[in-house]
Amino acid sequence: MNPYRNYAKTYRDELRTNVIPFWLKHAPDGEYGGFFTCLDRDGSVYDTEKHMWMQWRVVWMLSELHRKLEPDPVWLAQARQGFAFLTRYGKAADGSYYFSLGRDGTPFTAPYNIFSECFACMGSAAFFKASGDPQAAEEAQASYRRYIARGADPKGQWEKRLPGAPRWQPLSIPMIRINLSLVMAECLGDAGALEDAAEVAREVLARFRHPGSGLIFENIPAQGGFDLRSPTGRHLNPGHALESMWFVMLAARRSGQPDLISQAADVILATLESGWDQEHGGLYYFMDAEGRPHPELTWSMKLWWVHCEALIAALMAFQLSGRKEFWVWFEKLHHWTWQHYPDPAYGEWFGYLERNGRPASMLKGGKWKSFFHLPRMLLLCSEMLGELASGAEPQQNPIRPA
Amino acid sequence: MNPYRNYAKTYRDELRTNVIPFWLKHAPDGEYGGFFTCLDRDGSVYDTEKHMWMQWRVVWMLSELHRKLEPDPVWLAQARQGFAFLTRYGKAADGSYYFSLGRDGTPFTAPYNIFSECFACMGSAAFFKASGDPQAAEEAQASYRRYIARGADPKGQWEKRLPGAPRWQPLSIPMIRINLSLVMAECLGDAGALEDAAEVAREVLARFRHPGSGLIFENIPAQGGFDLRSPTGRHLNPGHALESMWFVMLAARRSGQPDLISQAADVILATLESGWDQEHGGLYYFMDAEGRPHPELTWSMKLWWVHCEALIAALMAFQLSGRKEFWVWFEKLHHWTWQHYPDPAYGEWFGYLERNGRPASMLKGGKWKSFFHLPRMLLLCSEMLGELASGAEPQQNPIRPA
Repeated sequence: MNPYRNYAKTYRDELRTNVIPFWLKHAPDGEYGGFFTCLDRDGSVYDTEKHMWMQWRVVWMLSELHRKLEPDPVWLAQARQGFAFLTRYGKAADGSYYFSLGRDGTPFTAPYNIFSECFACMGSAAFFKASGDPQAAEEAQASYRRYIARGADPKGQWEKRLPGAPRWQPLSIPMIRINLSLVMAECLGDAGALEDAAEVAREVLARFRHPGSGLIFENIPAQGGFDLRSPTGRHLNPGHALESMWFVMLAARRSGQPDLISQAADVILATLESGWDQEHGGLYYFMDAEGRPHPELTWSMKLWWVHCEALIAALMAFQLSGRKEFWVWFEKLHHWTWQHYPDPAYGEWFGYLERNGRPASMLKGGKWKSFFHLPRMLLLCSEMLGELASGAEPQQNPIRPA
Repeated sequence: MNPYRNYAKTYRDELRTNVIPFWLKHAPDGEYGGFFTCLDRDGSVYDTEKHMWMQWRVVWMLSELHRKLEPDPVWLAQARQGFAFLTRYGKAADGSYYFSLGRDGTPFTAPYNIFSECFACMGSAAFFKASGDPQAAEEAQASYRRYIARGADPKGQWEKRLPGAPRWQPLSIPMIRINLSLVMAECLGDAGALEDAAEVAREVLARFRHPGSGLIFENIPAQGGFDLRSPTGRHLNPGHALESMWFVMLAARRSGQPDLISQAADVILATLESGWDQEHGGLYYFMDAEGRPHPELTWSMKLWWVHCEALIAALMAFQLSGRKEFWVWFEKLHHWTWQHYPDPAYGEWFGYLERNGRPASMLKGGKWKSFFHLPRMLLLCSEMLGELASGAEPQQNPIRPA
């Protein structure tokens, strides 16, 4: 009996026979290019607006699947048409990416959001690695530079907070930088980017980890330390904490810094223990570090992406640390997740559950959910589980088969 | 047996012995002025930031209570110190109001939101009427003018949608204008403002009422008509629809246009029927007119203010139209509301319930909840119920005792 083998097959089959077919059937816009991502429960389109994060994520995922799951000319062709549509219509005069376009590519929403650059970089880099298209390498480099340049003042002219207000450093900026630098190292062979990833990973652990609780805080004061006097300073985002910690573990492993792996594993354990809903199961979306009211009404909802990131983090921590408690957590997360998210009637997974585990929305895709967290989790977990099943030592780079 | 009398006492007692004492005890900031509105379940302060909508609403409500419930020097003194704090620290160089201040009055958030002007106007006008302070009358007039001037481009420099995107007219702008014009007519004796209120009320019914469903839509295309191809065009907000309809009824009544009253009553009935959750009871927060996924995850939550506005709208429709179905709705709303919102342990009411009626947050006040919807509803309903109990014809102006 090898439990890993069954799990590996479950994750791979779900990706191959449920999630990929759903998106390939409903998402591509054969008339204008790009993708529909606002999909109702049955895959029908309820909005044709093209949100840039979501568009680029589809390009990234299809390129990754072509390279890592199996080569498929349809997936690569869809990534190619998406890349062409987005680079043709998506960029403002200053080179930054709009937040959204109309169906035909007309700019709808200003480039106020730095993470459009992030997903443009990921999508372009992965498409380059899959296709060899030199324009994609250039695009990846340009978006990577813009992401880093915008990091100091990410909101720019759209910043509503005034100079007299407390200034914060959000976790999201360095967290995403670790991931982008890993992508640039992997897809473009940029050795400096790998060094950058490891450096920022060390910084995130040193600065955002609260010494008392061992938890990663979402916002720390600009001058460093912690300030728990306001909801901003007490804000916890377990999904972000878990996702950032598996980015840290990858950076640590690829750059040979094992001490960061065990630190990240400790954070993952503390996050899972404090983020689990003892009454209904599942992980909270947001929390207040002192249990005061959280300003976001959705704080207690159960989101698919939080559980996807938790599965990756727990499994990676198990694979890299060997600590059994992470396998126990992986199985606990697995059971709750697979019991609540897959849609037995129309395929794919629900994204948003009420606290009690019942779907709060029937959408399969929207402004914030497309073909990304779920297929990435299924791909990464099936790879890690496959390695565990074969008894192999983890590969030097488990998400990049030689 | 006079059922109205018992209800009238219930509403008045709740206001007098529960809601007012809770806020007077916990909200005033005796050190810096203004009010704490971010109050935990027990009234303790979880954030000292001073959000302008919430601050001005407290000034408005205290002034109204002093004038309409009973004269109380403490309430008037608190309104006065709030008015002084907000006019001293709250205004940007161009005269518009910041969105939020720090505890000591330092500007924290830019004046991006036109509704800060709305609540400054309401608070100043009511405080003038209660106190006779001429500075308050000037402030009310200035904010009223600024609100109207900003209405054409409410977001100004903070607008993220680009010229190529579909352009919409939101209900909120004319809806609030009706209310502000009624307030200016009532508190400053501005006869032109009453004409304005009636004119805008007629326009709202003519333009925002969808002919098929009889429902008020939250967004209509800039050029008029309806466009149901996107979530924006299908967005329904039952609480706004109900609140705007009682504004319309007041404007109609004060300006002597009874046809508007019966039109508004029809909208109220259609809104209550379509907005009621058949499974758990209560009114939805948001809906999609075609039942497609709503982009806001909170769409199915049950918010205190929606139920407050529904109680006012149903009771006013009953009082003004005499149609029995509105009394049936008032009692149905009354039972669900009073069963779910009051906090038996610490007083005041919960603001945010999950769809199933269980509190989603324990806060009594926050960025969007302070001393406003609940006490306004208790005051208006106790007045209307008192009139019904005494068998009196509705007064010419039920919210303005001669």
